[in-house]
Formats: sequence, C-alpha cells, structure tokens
Amino acid sequence: MNTNRRDFIKKSALAAGMAGVGSLAQSCCNAAPTPAKNNVSLNLSFQDGTAPGTSLNEKLDYMEKLGIAGLEVGGGGLTKRVNELQQALKGRNIKMSAICAGFSGWLIAENEAQRKECMDSTKEILAAGGELGSTGMILVPGFNGQQPSLQMPQAREVLIEQLIELGDFAQKHNTSVMLEPLNREEAWYLRLVADAAAICRDVNNPGVTCLGDFWHMTWEETSDYGAFMSGGKYLRHVHMASRKRRSMPGEDGEADNYIDGFRALKELNYQYYVSFECGCQGKREESVPAAVALLREQWEKA
Amino acid sequence: MNTNRRDFIKKSALAAGMAGVGSLAQSCCNAAPTPAKNNVSLNLSFQDGTAPGTSLNEKLDYMEKLGIAGLEVGGGGLTKRVNELQQALKGRNIKMSAICAGFSGWLIAENEAQRKECMDSTKEILAAGGELGSTGMILVPGFNGQQPSLQMPQAREVLIEQLIELGDFAQKHNTSVMLEPLNREEAWYLRLVADAAAICRDVNNPGVTCLGDFWHMTWEETSDYGAFMSGGKYLRHVHMASRKRRSMPGEDGEADNYIDGFRALKELNYQYYVSFECGCQGKREESVPAAVALLREQWEKA
Repeated sequence: MNTNRRDFIKKSALAAGMAGVGSLAQSCCNAAPTPAKNNVSLNLSFQDGTAPGTSLNEKLDYMEKLGIAGLEVGGGGLTKRVNELQQALKGRNIKMSAICAGFSGWLIAENEAQRKECMDSTKEILAAGGELGSTGMILVPGFNGQQPSLQMPQAREVLIEQLIELGDFAQKHNTSVMLEPLNREEAWYLRLVADAAAICRDVNNPGVTCLGDFWHMTWEETSDYGAFMSGGKYLRHVHMASRKRRSMPGEDGEADNYIDGFRALKELNYQYYVSFECGCQGKREESVPAAVALLREQWEKA
Repeated sequence: MNTNRRDFIKKSALAAGMAGVGSLAQSCCNAAPTPAKNNVSLNLSFQDGTAPGTSLNEKLDYMEKLGIAGLEVGGGGLTKRVNELQQALKGRNIKMSAICAGFSGWLIAENEAQRKECMDSTKEILAAGGELGSTGMILVPGFNGQQPSLQMPQAREVLIEQLIELGDFAQKHNTSVMLEPLNREEAWYLRLVADAAAICRDVNNPGVTCLGDFWHMTWEETSDYGAFMSGGKYLRHVHMASRKRRSMPGEDGEADNYIDGFRALKELNYQYYVSFECGCQGKREESVPAAVALLREQWEKA
C-alpha cells in the first residue's frame, strides 16, 4: 500500500468519520456496568516459563495443583506446537489463554512489505491459536526500535484498516487479536489501555480486543481502575508482574498492590485471564505459590 | 537547549526513573475515592463568547441570572485586560475559571527558540491569570501543525522538565498550568486524559494539572467515566460541548449524554468548573438556557 495513497484515504475517511459521529458519540457514553462483584472469579494463567518444573507436563501438573486455569505460550513456531500442546492440555482443568506475540514485521511500518510480513505472520499464529482454543493473540502495533514507522494520525488509520482484516480472520478462527499497550521505553505508539480500547471501538470488529499489563500500566497510567474501566468490553486479557522489577507479584513488597485494578475487573464482570508475565527473584517453589496466594487475597479485598 | 544534550539527559533520567519506582508504583494504585455524590455541586462556567449580550457586562448579568459560577477568557493579550476583567467581576457571584491558551511557540518543538517562546508567553499569561484568581491556564504541548516536533519518548522528557519550571512559576502566582488532550485531528502528542494525568504525576508539581474536554473525549476515549477517574486528583477543568458538532449541549440530541462522565466527577468530589467551549446552532437566548437546564438535569441523574 502506497503511503501517499494512504494519506489521501486517511484524510477522506477521517473527515467522513468526524461528520458521522452519531453512533460513536453514543457508544462513548457507556451506561454504568452492573456491579456483580462477588460472583466474578479470578482466572489465573501462567506463561510456560512461570511454574517450576523441567517439562511442560511437570509444569502443568504443578499449575493444576495451584488451581491455575490458563496457559499462555509464545506465538513463535506455534503452528508446529499445536499437536504437542493439545496433547499436554488433554483432560486437564487448564485451557489455552493468550498466545504471546511471535509475529514479525509491524503494522505501522512505513514500508508496505514490513506491514505485509506482520499481517502474514499474525494470521499464521491466529490460525494455530484458534485450533488451541486460545482467547487471543497479543499484538503490538509498533515497537520504538521498529523504524521507519508512520506518524500519527496516519499510523492510526493504516492500523485500523489492517485490524479490520485481522479481526475478520481471527473471528473465523474463533479467537481474537489483542492489542497490548507498552510503556514509553518500549513503544511510543500505544501506551494506554484507553487508547487501545478506542482503537478497538473504531475498528468495530469483535475479533479485535485489547490487553492491560500491570507492569506497563505502572508507568503509563495514573489509575489501574480508570484504565480498566476504559478498557471495558474490549478488555480480553491482563498481564501480571511485580511493580518495581517485573518479577513475581509480592517480590516488590508494598508496591505490589493490584486491588484498585481488580475492583474494576470485578465491576466489569471480567471473564478472561490474569496471566503472569514476569521473572522471579527467589526460588520458584516459594515465590510462585506466594504470588498466587497474594493475588487471591487482593481479589477478595477488591 | 540542545537536542543531543537533551537526548543524553533523557536516557539518564529515564533509567533513573525506571529504577526508583517505589513512590510511582504506590501512587498508581490509588485507593477508591470516597463517594460523596450528593454533596458535589455542578459549577458551570462560560467562555466570554457563550452568553448572549453585546458587552461583557451584559453577558455577565445574563450569566448571573442563570447561576453560572465561572468565566473563561482567552489568554491572548490578557495582561492588558486584567483591570477591565477585575472591574467587570467586582461584586459579582462569578469568578475567573480557566484562561484558555493564548501562548505562542510550543513545548515539544525541536527548536529551542520555539520552546522558549512558549515558556515566555505562558509565564506572561500565568501571571495575569494569577492576578485574576484563575484556576489555571490551558496549555497544549504541541498541535499537529507545529513542526518539527520532538518524537516520543524524548518529547515527554523535554516536556516534563519545562513543566516543572512552569509549575513552580504557576504556584508562585496562585494558579496552575492545565494540560489539555485534544483529538487526533488536532494533536497527535496528547490525546487522552489518562496520559495528561500521567504527565502531571511524573512532573509531581501542584502547579501542573490537566483538563478533560467532552468534545475531544468523544473521539479519543471509550469511557468518559474511565477517563475522568484516571484524571483523578490532577483534573482541574472540564470543557463542555455537544458531541456531534461542538455546539450547545443538547443541540445534538441523544448524543449529548454526559451522565457517565458526571458520575466520575461526583465520585471524585470534583470542585472545579465545567466550562462551555462550543458554538451555537440556534438562537443563543434559547439554546444557552436549554443547555444549562440539560446539564443540571444530567448532573442530578449521575
């Protein structure tokens, strides 16, 4: 896609968008969600590196004993792992949660070939994720190091057009694309949950959703509660880490308070996963169950 | 200020910032605000063009009859208007609310001279606004047309350093700088209330606050409630307009629903102004009082 042509399309589309704002304006004024705080369960998920154990099956055994409901794996090479993962999860109380990235290229690239590389690699991962019953695949529109990138507002328009196509593809495979806001050191383009949610609203495709990561939110958001309330119905996944060193929740002491965010998840009647994406300072056999206990305690308090 | 030097400072400052996250992480997890919904009053404010009338005194008479609590004026040439405005407000139940922009240059300019122009012109307006008892002066870090501008994340660091200086200056003059997020057609750099609030938090200076404008929020936010909750204690001003054409609230019919946002303002115990910044489709003598009645009705419902 030619950038000059895109620029032209953008101007026309945005002008049209600004004129026909009726439905948008209405969807902006969401009614207050019905609080159903006490009936919402905390569905914890681990990445495949989180639990102690030397094999996937050992890790899954450990997770089951801890009552962990979901498994998140990387998207790189996922097509070749579908059978292995299906076998490993068979008969267990653990389901596939998110597929974490693994794509190449990026959607806000100036260069069409790099955008296409992202579209193609994302579709391959979405297809595999769909086979595994995953809630969605995590996608970052552009990292700081990925240059040259389109600037705003053109980047937004080009992104939305591609996301409509990916959302249709994801829906056909019973999964979704999950946009992840990162902190400013990693990605200038998408940093706030409200912004990711607004992209989802503008894409207007059930196959495009978003994510909130407590680690990145520590830097970019002032309020975990406000951020998740803005995420609203578009919020499909949450990443969890300690708030000073991106380690096991609790390893950073008092800073590891998630109650304000959990309160929003409960008010939103959030049905998806809260998934660990973090390192570990201490012994996994001690820090992992302590983190799980801490989060369950904070969920109760929220 | 040299850009290369800034780049160096930025890298050191951000590395230090990421290491010393204790207080930041704690302030991110705000405790739930105490709802005091029924005792919070709606303090409406008009810009000097909002009310019908041919002179400022006629407009102020009209506003007093409608129970309008604040007056917002432009910052351009404000120094020369201090005496006129002081005289006009003397003995009235109307106070100065915000000073709307009026600065030249911009804070995220690549060029040091343009940044300095913004600092100097902003200080002049802040001093005049302070004399008038204004709650603050509205500042936009950079419009789309203001180029060349610094990119993220450097723009953020340069902005914060300048805002610390402006915040100190504003405090000495008993007023504040109010950062205003605009929609993507006007300003790529700052579009979300949560982002403006996070800048305020990082600046950590009581003289730097932020603003939410229902017009811009219609495009950039998914939830008025979530946006204002993220604004939290940094929110010092709100702009009001209809949601399709930026006219008098109510002139765009069903789209003009502000209840979700008002609910957040009440929960936040918001004590500042909700100020009209909009055109008018009909006769001012009819549309203005109808808009005021609509907003009071929605405030009660919130």
